[in-house]
Amino acid sequence: MLDKIRIVLVNTSHPGNIGSAARAMKTMGLHRLVLVSPRLFPHSKAIEMSSHADDVLENAIVVETLEEALADCTLAIATSARPRSIELEPLTPRQCAETAKNAAQDVSAEIALVFGREDSGLTNEELLCCHYHTCIPSNPAYSSLNLAAAVQVLCYELRVAALADTSVVLKESREPKATVRDVESFYEHLAIVLKDLGFLRKESPTLMPKLRRLFNRIQLEKTESDILRGILTSVQKKRL
Amino acid sequence: MLDKIRIVLVNTSHPGNIGSAARAMKTMGLHRLVLVSPRLFPHSKAIEMSSHADDVLENAIVVETLEEALADCTLAIATSARPRSIELEPLTPRQCAETAKNAAQDVSAEIALVFGREDSGLTNEELLCCHYHTCIPSNPAYSSLNLAAAVQVLCYELRVAALADTSVVLKESREPKATVRDVESFYEHLAIVLKDLGFLRKESPTLMPKLRRLFNRIQLEKTESDILRGILTSVQKKRL
Repeated sequence: MLDKIRIVLVNTSHPGNIGSAARAMKTMGLHRLVLVSPRLFPHSKAIEMSSHADDVLENAIVVETLEEALADCTLAIATSARPRSIELEPLTPRQCAETAKNAAQDVSAEIALVFGREDSGLTNEELLCCHYHTCIPSNPAYSSLNLAAAVQVLCYELRVAALADTSVVLKESREPKATVRDVESFYEHLAIVLKDLGFLRKESPTLMPKLRRLFNRIQLEKTESDILRGILTSVQKKRL
Repeated sequence: MLDKIRIVLVNTSHPGNIGSAARAMKTMGLHRLVLVSPRLFPHSKAIEMSSHADDVLENAIVVETLEEALADCTLAIATSARPRSIELEPLTPRQCAETAKNAAQDVSAEIALVFGREDSGLTNEELLCCHYHTCIPSNPAYSSLNLAAAVQVLCYELRVAALADTSVVLKESREPKATVRDVESFYEHLAIVLKDLGFLRKESPTLMPKLRRLFNRIQLEKTESDILRGILTSVQKKRL
């Protein structure tokens, strides 16, 4: 299960935090780190703080955008510290680990856990690239978890779930899931059709986020996203 | 419950770790820190790493021996990273939190969670001052949790147990769900539009069941089923 999970850090400012996060991951048996536009990386401070988890840093993948980081993922869970205006289904860290464990039953599963910037977390747009979000229940008067501390807690829950997972029989998935890339293409297509229909107007900036929230919740299967796109295409054709 | 728990750090070498531990405690709503013969304390590095949890440092109690730190405790749980020759009853972090929660039912309960030195943990003698010990299940190949990371994980489990205790689980207020009737009306509307589009034909008897399966999985909210029906209506209007 843990091999299928990547930890994605978005726009990390301090290389020391990347190192500490790598250490936290490795103590819990996670090895796959993806960095989205880190401010400074590679960096000596990252190596120093990783203690002996520098292999995690050496194998880290650096990409430009969150979309790239998630392109082949079948499940993406965002972490967030703050209540959001447009809520995705919120999970406790324990539910997050259970959700990842269930998803990992699928042989082709690729799972991402996404952490935002040290100061400002993830944007709403970034949250809406993910299927779920999870919050560490923290002291309302002082919720300032260090990035690596948040990685530690979530990876700990993942490890506990993985250890409880005694029957490691990989099920052939009934239906393969749509990847994040598939679903993003669907959203683009949907937005075009809704504009054509005059349903999506500039005055309704919350419509697409609402629709994303709706469809993210389903975790579309590949055939389902194909059907939905087929419907959109047939709407377009009829209008010619 | 959390007010009855003190975190005891034994012979900590690096003041920065004391600061990070204070931060980890405070994020989880714990405030009572006891330091047994710290090498350097107070220290600027401790304040720096505590972020804004310096109140925890200011109120920290410094004592000479573990015996003093635990003198008035009714329950003491030691943390340890390694298997020991002299085993106390071993608890998982979750069991540790449950044990603390049960003990906290007693009005006069005083509970301690004891963390050892960065390099060598607790001595067997120190372990034997405690009622139980607990291990964070870590990667056998790399079990090197940072002191503050270990404090974070244990305090997290304590907080989760505490929240379950008072049933102050942070629930997001949910939007009202669509009723079965709402959703059935949506399906009827969808079928009509898909027939108009020529997308739903008699030869495809599985299409509507597939779409039902898809949308049932979401558990639509009322506003969402309204949006979807609005889209269907706008498709119909465009075709007039």
